[in-house]
Amino acid sequence: MQDAERWRELGQQLRVDSIRAAAVTSSGHPTSSMSAADLMAVLLDAHLRYDFGKADDPHNDHLIFSKGHASPLLYSMYKAAGAVTEEELLTFRKFGSRLQGHPTPEIPWVDVATGSLGQGLPYGVGIALAGKKLDRLPYRVWVLCGDSEMAEGSMWEAFEHAAFFELDNLTAIIDVNRLGQRGETMHGWDLDSYANRAKAYGWHAIEIDGHDVEAVDRAYTEAQATSGQPTVIVAKTIKGKGVAEVADKPGWHGKALDNPEQAIEELGGIRNIVVDVHAPDRSAEPYVFATSGELELPTWDEGEEVATRLAYGEALEALGAARGDVVAVDGEVSNSTYADKFAKAFPERYFEMYIAEQQLVATAVGLQVRNWVPFASTFAAFFSRAYDFIRMAAISQANIRLCGSHAGVSIGEDGPSQMALEDLAMMRAVHGSTVLYPSDANQTAKLVAAMADREGIVFMRSTRAATPVIYGADEEFPIGGARVVREGDDLTIVGAGITLHESLKAAEHLAGEGIEARVIDLYSVKPADGDTLRAAAEATDGRVLTVEDHWPEGGIGDAVLEALSLGGDLPARVVRLAVREMPGSGKPAELLAAAGIDAEHIAEAARSLVGAPVGAR
Amino acid sequence: MQDAERWRELGQQLRVDSIRAAAVTSSGHPTSSMSAADLMAVLLDAHLRYDFGKADDPHNDHLIFSKGHASPLLYSMYKAAGAVTEEELLTFRKFGSRLQGHPTPEIPWVDVATGSLGQGLPYGVGIALAGKKLDRLPYRVWVLCGDSEMAEGSMWEAFEHAAFFELDNLTAIIDVNRLGQRGETMHGWDLDSYANRAKAYGWHAIEIDGHDVEAVDRAYTEAQATSGQPTVIVAKTIKGKGVAEVADKPGWHGKALDNPEQAIEELGGIRNIVVDVHAPDRSAEPYVFATSGELELPTWDEGEEVATRLAYGEALEALGAARGDVVAVDGEVSNSTYADKFAKAFPERYFEMYIAEQQLVATAVGLQVRNWVPFASTFAAFFSRAYDFIRMAAISQANIRLCGSHAGVSIGEDGPSQMALEDLAMMRAVHGSTVLYPSDANQTAKLVAAMADREGIVFMRSTRAATPVIYGADEEFPIGGARVVREGDDLTIVGAGITLHESLKAAEHLAGEGIEARVIDLYSVKPADGDTLRAAAEATDGRVLTVEDHWPEGGIGDAVLEALSLGGDLPARVVRLAVREMPGSGKPAELLAAAGIDAEHIAEAARSLVGAPVGAR
Repeated sequence: MQDAERWRELGQQLRVDSIRAAAVTSSGHPTSSMSAADLMAVLLDAHLRYDFGKADDPHNDHLIFSKGHASPLLYSMYKAAGAVTEEELLTFRKFGSRLQGHPTPEIPWVDVATGSLGQGLPYGVGIALAGKKLDRLPYRVWVLCGDSEMAEGSMWEAFEHAAFFELDNLTAIIDVNRLGQRGETMHGWDLDSYANRAKAYGWHAIEIDGHDVEAVDRAYTEAQATSGQPTVIVAKTIKGKGVAEVADKPGWHGKALDNPEQAIEELGGIRNIVVDVHAPDRSAEPYVFATSGELELPTWDEGEEVATRLAYGEALEALGAARGDVVAVDGEVSNSTYADKFAKAFPERYFEMYIAEQQLVATAVGLQVRNWVPFASTFAAFFSRAYDFIRMAAISQANIRLCGSHAGVSIGEDGPSQMALEDLAMMRAVHGSTVLYPSDANQTAKLVAAMADREGIVFMRSTRAATPVIYGADEEFPIGGARVVREGDDLTIVGAGITLHESLKAAEHLAGEGIEARVIDLYSVKPADGDTLRAAAEATDGRVLTVEDHWPEGGIGDAVLEALSLGGDLPARVVRLAVREMPGSGKPAELLAAAGIDAEHIAEAARSLVGAPVGAR
Repeated sequence: MQDAERWRELGQQLRVDSIRAAAVTSSGHPTSSMSAADLMAVLLDAHLRYDFGKADDPHNDHLIFSKGHASPLLYSMYKAAGAVTEEELLTFRKFGSRLQGHPTPEIPWVDVATGSLGQGLPYGVGIALAGKKLDRLPYRVWVLCGDSEMAEGSMWEAFEHAAFFELDNLTAIIDVNRLGQRGETMHGWDLDSYANRAKAYGWHAIEIDGHDVEAVDRAYTEAQATSGQPTVIVAKTIKGKGVAEVADKPGWHGKALDNPEQAIEELGGIRNIVVDVHAPDRSAEPYVFATSGELELPTWDEGEEVATRLAYGEALEALGAARGDVVAVDGEVSNSTYADKFAKAFPERYFEMYIAEQQLVATAVGLQVRNWVPFASTFAAFFSRAYDFIRMAAISQANIRLCGSHAGVSIGEDGPSQMALEDLAMMRAVHGSTVLYPSDANQTAKLVAAMADREGIVFMRSTRAATPVIYGADEEFPIGGARVVREGDDLTIVGAGITLHESLKAAEHLAGEGIEARVIDLYSVKPADGDTLRAAAEATDGRVLTVEDHWPEGGIGDAVLEALSLGGDLPARVVRLAVREMPGSGKPAELLAAAGIDAEHIAEAARSLVGAPVGAR
């Protein structure tokens, strides 16, 4: 069989198998799969370089379905490649199957979870960056995109950065099938719309008929021959191609076909072509950055005043010296987050993401696909811009380290737009996340080191203002632990970061009044140290005061209550101080006082808590 | 004085005043203000049509500083317009001043809070849309943008939608001063980079020297004369223009000048030009949509099985019939969220936002600036894409109604990328928010009606699956209330949405075993009904079981514990059922069971809770 003929047959097989898969539970997106079948048939048979027997081979190409809902097509490709049996294909969307409605890395050949649109290409940029600048291997990144998702701004962050970094190892394929979920897209079949945008961003753009397999093949060849810029192939396709009942008809998005057997017949029936996928280019080995090997964390003397954000920057630099696999990305604020220290010391392992937080997080996710250890930083408030990427990163089982600086009202005059007051809530609600909030520089350094190899999404909140060093440089801070910084049995005060220091000041005042407060540093907000918290609650007759530079919901107060509730009996009385009114500008001290979370207000709340008898309101 | 001469003088005044303002607390962004001073001088003096004495005049133009950090410039403009005194200008960034570090609507002439970059233009699109399609008034929307923030994908969602809606009443001005916070932007002074992108998106683009006041004036005139497409003025400028020490020098972002007096002298000293701003075009009155006036909510019979997402759609349509100020926007999923019913009934008041959730929320914020009542919908999981916009909307004191469908594992086969499992946490942590989670169709309809006029950010979570109607059509559901759906004194079970129904099923089984469960419907997650919860905890000997189709953090469990803690004494034992493992695909019933939140698991947990004596682990 000639190449073209084989590709057409394979395309039909992929259509047939997509329909068969969706028929299993009568759900899924077969028509979205059918439009891209020819594009993927040619890719799989003639251009993708991948060893399905060795998913973790660093030389492998990477294929991402940014239009993740076309999962039937992806899984049908795996079957054609011999990686998945027909039997397994027919478990699509069934409970317990790894062939889920949208692809996840439960499947070894899937790098990143998609399904939330507009994300696959940003992840692809991260992987391509790894390929070009870190691994320095010739693998290619192929991203299948939908036309509907081109409306997502994150796609254009990807376009911008891919061109800026000259990622000619990245090829985007846009399946322009004209129909979104609800109706026609903004641009229909106007391929120029997409191509002109791409060219304005500095990409090479090729417009083709997505069902002309020879044109598809030529486009892939041209993309691979293009240097200095990434290529987008803008392919005109028909949603539901091959089955008259659904081809180019609205109303069929996300629906299994009513008459799958009839459709399969119309497509020429079931086939069993097995593709011998081209092996990866194994001519080179992944680059390894030289390092000192020994981790020498920075240390500070007790009593010094040091901002934890500065400690983050210095610790990250030290980590970078010891670990060649550590890389950093930041969002145009590295002189504020202090990621600039790493950037200056290791310019080959630092990538400026500019003001594009979605791409910032997506790049980190892409880099860790290739086992690099990414630390991504920006203001904690701005990680909210990338929350959907963080949410999806958990489904991707990604190992990413995030540092958000400028936490809380204590940043001062910049005002609320720059203040993170919901970041603890946001990050606690991420599956499998770790949430750290150090109070001093030595603790920060130790936690930064611990972040490097911790699985999952690890978030550290750092403070703008300088705060006293209260821990020795030799102290250890296990994640999931808490520190009793001050002993006392009259009440428990739980703080972290800036409020830990305010709590200690309050405790001093209270001691003068004969009230001995047990002050706990909850540097590990998640997982929280339930044992220490429960022991403290018990020892202090159930009187617990929590204080956070954060809204009342979802942060330290909630974390403490949750930990206390897990022990069975709850303590009698928990008072929660937090920021309850929208702050404005002002000096840090003014803002902390206005929010009722400074030493004076903590002491006041403590007096009330101790004064009232247990069992009273 | 000739126009050009006056504009140059006014530009210098704005520079001088920006420096003076930043000098007050020695903080702020004077150099970012100085680059745009000439652009704003010409705008204020010759093109802006605004009555500073009547901030709420519907005919007013709208001026948004997307580069919100240039607030010194904005406030200096207000002083030049006579709206703010010199004395007040010099309270910039001081505690208690309404002239905060970044603009907020504490100030009457500020529509939306900015400071998180890449947001002002999307908001401007919403206001321009109101002007063109709803108010049908000729006011113009002017948005001053930074070049650095053009890296934000949200800006390009704005570019896309503005052109798609042919918003020729919108003018964006990009202050291309080359320098970001940390260093040079990706494009430096290459004006073509921005202009070519804009043109590819369908905008008219004008490149100018941003310090040539006559060119600026001509550009504004040309923008206003351009029909059918929005205009972007790409202006080459110098950061810190006018003061040699800082002009075009890196390292001066966000820093007050070291030598303000010297700089002021260099700029020619303090001036006191007062601008007589052109009055708005009052030739027409805002359009008013005809309505029936009477609200006739849809009703269902008890026992019917109806999805709350469907009830949302029908209730919204009913609201639209009664209220001409209600408008709706959706993100390409209106046939899933059922916003399509409103769209079909009131096409003039529905705007498709396609797959661009940032612009979806920004549009809602923009529309409510002009007092329209926007309901924005998409899958609840995808609101996480717009979290920074939601966060900033609270600072904007915006009144927006959000409906997120497809909550939890109960959506079934689509899998985790489509499941909202953190939305309650996310939305609880928004300042002043209301979080609603109805369990049946009649309740949904009542709550949709209540959402319309409730202040702030109101979020409703809706369910994909059909669930039984358990409330009569005449029942009322005050926000902040909770419903005891089933009486009992052995334990309290708190659920909402889908888990309310599972809890009722569990209660049935338990009753057969002699265990009487009090089942509470927490349809108002925030504010939560502490009285009802505490009364229940007390009546059931402190045995409380919470169940949610959501991660454990930040949702119903946390809300219940928070409410219980506010009463003083906490109950003895709270058990929290939630989704703790990453779900896959499957039938809703399979996924609910796997997550341990179905009737069977609720009953099991209830038995343990009741079986164990109070005070035991």
